[in-house]
Amino acid sequence: VNRARMLISCPDRPGIVAAVSQFLSEHGANIVQSDQYTMDPEGGMFFIRIEFDLDQLTARLPQLENDFAPVAERFSMNWSISPASKKKRLAILVSKEDHCLLELLWQWQAGDLYADIALVISNHPDMRELVESFGIPYYHIPVTPETKAEAEAKQIELIRGQADVIILARYMQIISPEFLKHYPNQLINIHHSFLPAFVGGKPYAQAYDRGVKLIGATAHYVTEELDGGPIIEQDVQRVSHRDNVDDLKRIGRHIERIVLARAVSWHVEDRILVYQNRTVVFV
Amino acid sequence: VNRARMLISCPDRPGIVAAVSQFLSEHGANIVQSDQYTMDPEGGMFFIRIEFDLDQLTARLPQLENDFAPVAERFSMNWSISPASKKKRLAILVSKEDHCLLELLWQWQAGDLYADIALVISNHPDMRELVESFGIPYYHIPVTPETKAEAEAKQIELIRGQADVIILARYMQIISPEFLKHYPNQLINIHHSFLPAFVGGKPYAQAYDRGVKLIGATAHYVTEELDGGPIIEQDVQRVSHRDNVDDLKRIGRHIERIVLARAVSWHVEDRILVYQNRTVVFV
Amino acid sequence: VNRARMLISCPDRPGIVAAVSQFLSEHGANIVQSDQYTMDPEGGMFFIRIEFDLDQLTARLPQLENDFAPVAERFSMNWSISPASKKKRLAILVSKEDHCLLELLWQWQAGDLYADIALVISNHPDMRELVESFGIPYYHIPVTPETKAEAEAKQIELIRGQADVIILARYMQIISPEFLKHYPNQLINIHHSFLPAFVGGKPYAQAYDRGVKLIGATAHYVTEELDGGPIIEQDVQRVSHRDNVDDLKRIGRHIERIVLARAVSWHVEDRILVYQNRTVVFV
Amino acid sequence: VNRARMLISCPDRPGIVAAVSQFLSEHGANIVQSDQYTMDPEGGMFFIRIEFDLDQLTARLPQLENDFAPVAERFSMNWSISPASKKKRLAILVSKEDHCLLELLWQWQAGDLYADIALVISNHPDMRELVESFGIPYYHIPVTPETKAEAEAKQIELIRGQADVIILARYMQIISPEFLKHYPNQLINIHHSFLPAFVGGKPYAQAYDRGVKLIGATAHYVTEELDGGPIIEQDVQRVSHRDNVDDLKRIGRHIERIVLARAVSWHVEDRILVYQNRTVVFV
Repeated sequence: VNRARMLISCPDRPGIVAAVSQFLSEHGANIVQSDQYTMDPEGGMFFIRIEFDLDQLTARLPQLENDFAPVAERFSMNWSISPASKKKRLAILVSKEDHCLLELLWQWQAGDLYADIALVISNHPDMRELVESFGIPYYHIPVTPETKAEAEAKQIELIRGQADVIILARYMQIISPEFLKHYPNQLINIHHSFLPAFVGGKPYAQAYDRGVKLIGATAHYVTEELDGGPIIEQDVQRVSHRDNVDDLKRIGRHIERIVLARAVSWHVEDRILVYQNRTVVFV
Repeated sequence: VNRARMLISCPDRPGIVAAVSQFLSEHGANIVQSDQYTMDPEGGMFFIRIEFDLDQLTARLPQLENDFAPVAERFSMNWSISPASKKKRLAILVSKEDHCLLELLWQWQAGDLYADIALVISNHPDMRELVESFGIPYYHIPVTPETKAEAEAKQIELIRGQADVIILARYMQIISPEFLKHYPNQLINIHHSFLPAFVGGKPYAQAYDRGVKLIGATAHYVTEELDGGPIIEQDVQRVSHRDNVDDLKRIGRHIERIVLARAVSWHVEDRILVYQNRTVVFV
Repeated sequence: VNRARMLISCPDRPGIVAAVSQFLSEHGANIVQSDQYTMDPEGGMFFIRIEFDLDQLTARLPQLENDFAPVAERFSMNWSISPASKKKRLAILVSKEDHCLLELLWQWQAGDLYADIALVISNHPDMRELVESFGIPYYHIPVTPETKAEAEAKQIELIRGQADVIILARYMQIISPEFLKHYPNQLINIHHSFLPAFVGGKPYAQAYDRGVKLIGATAHYVTEELDGGPIIEQDVQRVSHRDNVDDLKRIGRHIERIVLARAVSWHVEDRILVYQNRTVVFV
Repeated sequence: VNRARMLISCPDRPGIVAAVSQFLSEHGANIVQSDQYTMDPEGGMFFIRIEFDLDQLTARLPQLENDFAPVAERFSMNWSISPASKKKRLAILVSKEDHCLLELLWQWQAGDLYADIALVISNHPDMRELVESFGIPYYHIPVTPETKAEAEAKQIELIRGQADVIILARYMQIISPEFLKHYPNQLINIHHSFLPAFVGGKPYAQAYDRGVKLIGATAHYVTEELDGGPIIEQDVQRVSHRDNVDDLKRIGRHIERIVLARAVSWHVEDRILVYQNRTVVFV
């Protein structure tokens, strides 16, 4: 309960690690894990993730943040410190396919996903019973071209104050730029292809037509550019000429749920930094 | 030495397997391996690869082919029978990067690639010593925009009668449609990306910019559509934010040589059938 | 509904494929898929799996089997013909860990596992609610060293007539030879290591101590030799020094459920032949 | 040329990172990469690898090491600082199979393996021409049970002063404890199985008999316990019932060379720390 995670990105300069580790040491914190990456030593960006233990973390965190501000300013840092014990709260959006939602629910129930699932919102009523059996609120908000703006307003209202992170677990509606700006790098989508191959609709049909020998899935942060946001994780599975489009979809479901679950885990464990449409993932 | 391989593709109809296996049985052949695939049972295509043993194969093959012709005609078959002991002859085209060529040379020397490497042609002089140390003729044919047609004419002349299969082992020139039409489905290229992602030039730089988490390579038959021919094999390897473009190239070299070597092996073992820009690979 | 699957193993001799395919052709059956493997052509074993379509299969199957008997006898065949539409019935045995059971339930519900789950038996009461929510009967049969024989008798009684295949989905009791002899090659276990590494108990602790860089899981048919039965499927996942025993268990759970689900799918689709403690898997 | 790598392992205590990074900062060094791992935060071991840049590294390294000694003593550190530009010198021992040697030679020639290959020693004469064509000295030292001690003495004499690291690239003789004690954690072997499965001789035959569905290879440091030293890297490839022992060997050759080359690369880049028969590999 006294474990915290510090994420920093800033322009590279000599002395950053020394300044940060000395700061933590002087405040009585013990670094138990650190991962650092410098993109291009000459004039590039510096990224670090530090896990540290500090007695009475909760009580002392505000002062710690206060004291760190001048250090951060000196190095023009983008930074955050989060108590590891504080679970992130997820809102999951889903349409008709349940496999990605189910994987998240099971991993959550098994204790493998350290987060609270605050609510599930769907544009279809089908999964209410399933979701409520896990003790999680389910909201059915239908979406039509005419009611899209209104539906989003309802979604935002439901999520506001309840969830920090939004997971599109095979949610088949496009998120508006207005929605997105409330959740920068906090909105994770699973795309059913190895991006950038097969952007757009029906990727498995496209993959079949092209005769690929591997199919994949991609978890990414959502940005205004459709299927173009920073990639968090990708994986693939081997297929053959014997697999028709339905087989590809079935195999794809397995990759999708694994890839999405990994990405969500990394996000809620503060393992991901984003810089210029690329992710730095410390695993 | 009495082993042969039969490849058949034709419209699916009842009785094909029975007709073929009865034909072989009546001619004293013993089927030691068969792989069959029917694309969409209702009115689709039928593909089969049969390995069989027949005493005195070499002497009896012409008669066998003659006798099979009416069977083939009845079912509108596309077919071939090849003695397994007859090595296919390869011409390898290469530019400046040697890793794919080296992999083929080593596998050939180790006895893992059952083929003859008849000659190597390059638009650069660099690899002459290496290639000749394996006892293989090396031809340096420079290519410039002005001399491209002439260079191709020389290549075709060198290859004609010497090689059945052409391998583009990181050969960075585009093959003309005239050249291609001499070698339908006999010209294999290695593309340094997981097609159809990153078609065109500089795929590793594209992959870096997009921030992908896996990079791949694709072996395919060359057709007039650049990077668009039937895919034979693909594979990928995991990369991370730590890998810069040079790292991606280095990692990519390993995948490229593995993927190309697999594709060439399958081709020379008559394991590949092509139908409408897709491959059926019996492995 | 008119699709059937034929499995044959027998000593290799010339003419088997011809005899079988001619038999099927004469009876009006159309072969839509066939896979064949000959172990060591000279005097070895022959294995074939054929999928065929036959009008009015259900009505004509008894006669077909009757007619095939003399062919089978001629070649000393071990054989079976199963209607593809007839679902196999599974009994799942489970202890306290639910991940393998959940994967099977979910794949079954999603239509990816073509079988009936007839019943679940556990030596613990914990999963009753979960299993019954799927509409599947749950039986709690406690097992102690003293009551083991009695418990097995109850299990056999429950299973008899209800299930053809028994899945040990992390069932932590040893099955007695008496039980086994009722279900030869019909009893599938998931072992939480890459066998034959780490046989016996606590394989993840063993794997951690040995410092392996990959951990795996193995699905196998159960025989009297503990952890020694024919292997159906194996897979692995990469781990590192950062993963402690609990991490290995968590990662292992994912591999276990994937590997077990694959093995069960292949079994219920009649894709597995067993010969001398090895499996031939036609996928 | 001013890049250095620092490896430290010591009992975990608060303040290690701060002390080290402050030390480096005060000496004008800029940390460009750091990886840290704490095994069990409470009273466990601490491991760190730091890459830093320091102007005039070569001239200032002795003083730097001198100044660091008291810091190291305070924390009971096991430590080293190596200039990244200083290539490690390899001695490669090989018997009759050349694939692992070839992979190392090729990666070295391609610039992918940052090391000097000082010499190759073999108990067979076969590869002299190959090795010498790379400009590398080749020594043929036959080994028989009677001459083993004498042969080892010759090997040690040849290696002493010429090489820091010894690679057993499919060298089929057992190394004596006397030899080993000169090269603690500097002697890397490739074992042709996924250890600890199939220890001892003929692992591919063992793997075939057991009917495994994946075969693997393991690179490890050599210790007195045969096949029991700290594992550096492992990988596997899928096989099937179709693959006989020779196929397993052929497929295995590919995994062996990839796994060994990775392990050697990591070693020469100072990425590996050893603690109690386990490796910490920072990649």
